[in-house]
Amino acid sequence: MEPLTDAALDTLFREARSFSYWLDRPVGDDQLRAIYELTKWGPTAANACPMRLLFIRSPEGKARLKPVLAEGNVDKCMSAPVVAVIAMDMAFYEALPRLFPHTDARSWYAGKPEAIHNAAFRNSTLQGAYFMLAARALGLDCGPMSGFDGEALNGEFFPDGRWKANFICAIGYGDRDRLHPRGPRLDFDEACSLL
Amino acid sequence: MEPLTDAALDTLFREARSFSYWLDRPVGDDQLRAIYELTKWGPTAANACPMRLLFIRSPEGKARLKPVLAEGNVDKCMSAPVVAVIAMDMAFYEALPRLFPHTDARSWYAGKPEAIHNAAFRNSTLQGAYFMLAARALGLDCGPMSGFDGEALNGEFFPDGRWKANFICAIGYGDRDRLHPRGPRLDFDEACSLL
Repeated sequence: MEPLTDAALDTLFREARSFSYWLDRPVGDDQLRAIYELTKWGPTAANACPMRLLFIRSPEGKARLKPVLAEGNVDKCMSAPVVAVIAMDMAFYEALPRLFPHTDARSWYAGKPEAIHNAAFRNSTLQGAYFMLAARALGLDCGPMSGFDGEALNGEFFPDGRWKANFICAIGYGDRDRLHPRGPRLDFDEACSLL
Repeated sequence: MEPLTDAALDTLFREARSFSYWLDRPVGDDQLRAIYELTKWGPTAANACPMRLLFIRSPEGKARLKPVLAEGNVDKCMSAPVVAVIAMDMAFYEALPRLFPHTDARSWYAGKPEAIHNAAFRNSTLQGAYFMLAARALGLDCGPMSGFDGEALNGEFFPDGRWKANFICAIGYGDRDRLHPRGPRLDFDEACSLL
């Protein structure tokens, strides 16, 4: 496969930032669909694709979201064009006969709550990362957040209990003039070993 | 930021695949460092960066890995130039005074096993996805796997208990001639809602 250009690596990794302030520039539903159409190709265990996305962009939807947010995340979310709830379908394994038909992968999970939780959490998180990098790849910016009341969010938006929130992510065009300095990262030798 | 080209979107998402068979083409330590130098910029909660990477590429390292693998993953790993163990540092919060200095984020985790587990698992998984897309961005291919005995792997490679394996990922140049047909994905309307 063709390696990416330096400009593309900047867009995805080196110059990308997490934003708290947003330009007054809308994000259309066609863009949300385009993000998903890239995200969906990322790998998951047994192709189970457990991530589900709730895109909140109407004033009514945001009003329902506001009370479940940590105080420090209210303005970030209310001012963003879209807030995506990256959720996991706790019955994801029901789709495995279609998504991974060549073996009985459903039986690896059905009736096994710990296996369900671990696979839903790990693989919906992987897909959440694909989602953020897909948004960046299409020229958008992200503001991921874990600061919210998960039980309250689930009760408000997913009352039947099948979907559970994993994290949330504001989507829009970030205001670079209002970024803080970037946090440091661990060096290779701190985070990695070679064997 | 500059959106990516169609060719770059193919490399990252649309034409990328998970590989089980590898070309006889080596991967150098400089390439592993280059992957990390992109991966490290991806966002994590409170910039905690809990992922740790063990790159196994020597015959001795692979011999230690082999007995902990699920049977179906042995050949995939033994034939790959490198197998990366994507792990999480269960004491990641000790670095927060340096990585996120403007507040006492260490206190959100220290002595709170559930908060530690959730943050380590979620954020090391996000970083694992950044790692795979960074590898692809540099022209490499991935083969992620969850099929291994986690306790046995941790006991063999991380005996002090601080790092825990999350998933493993073979890295190399995949053999496209030996790919199976690609699995289907969920449609936008199956996986997403708009509010």
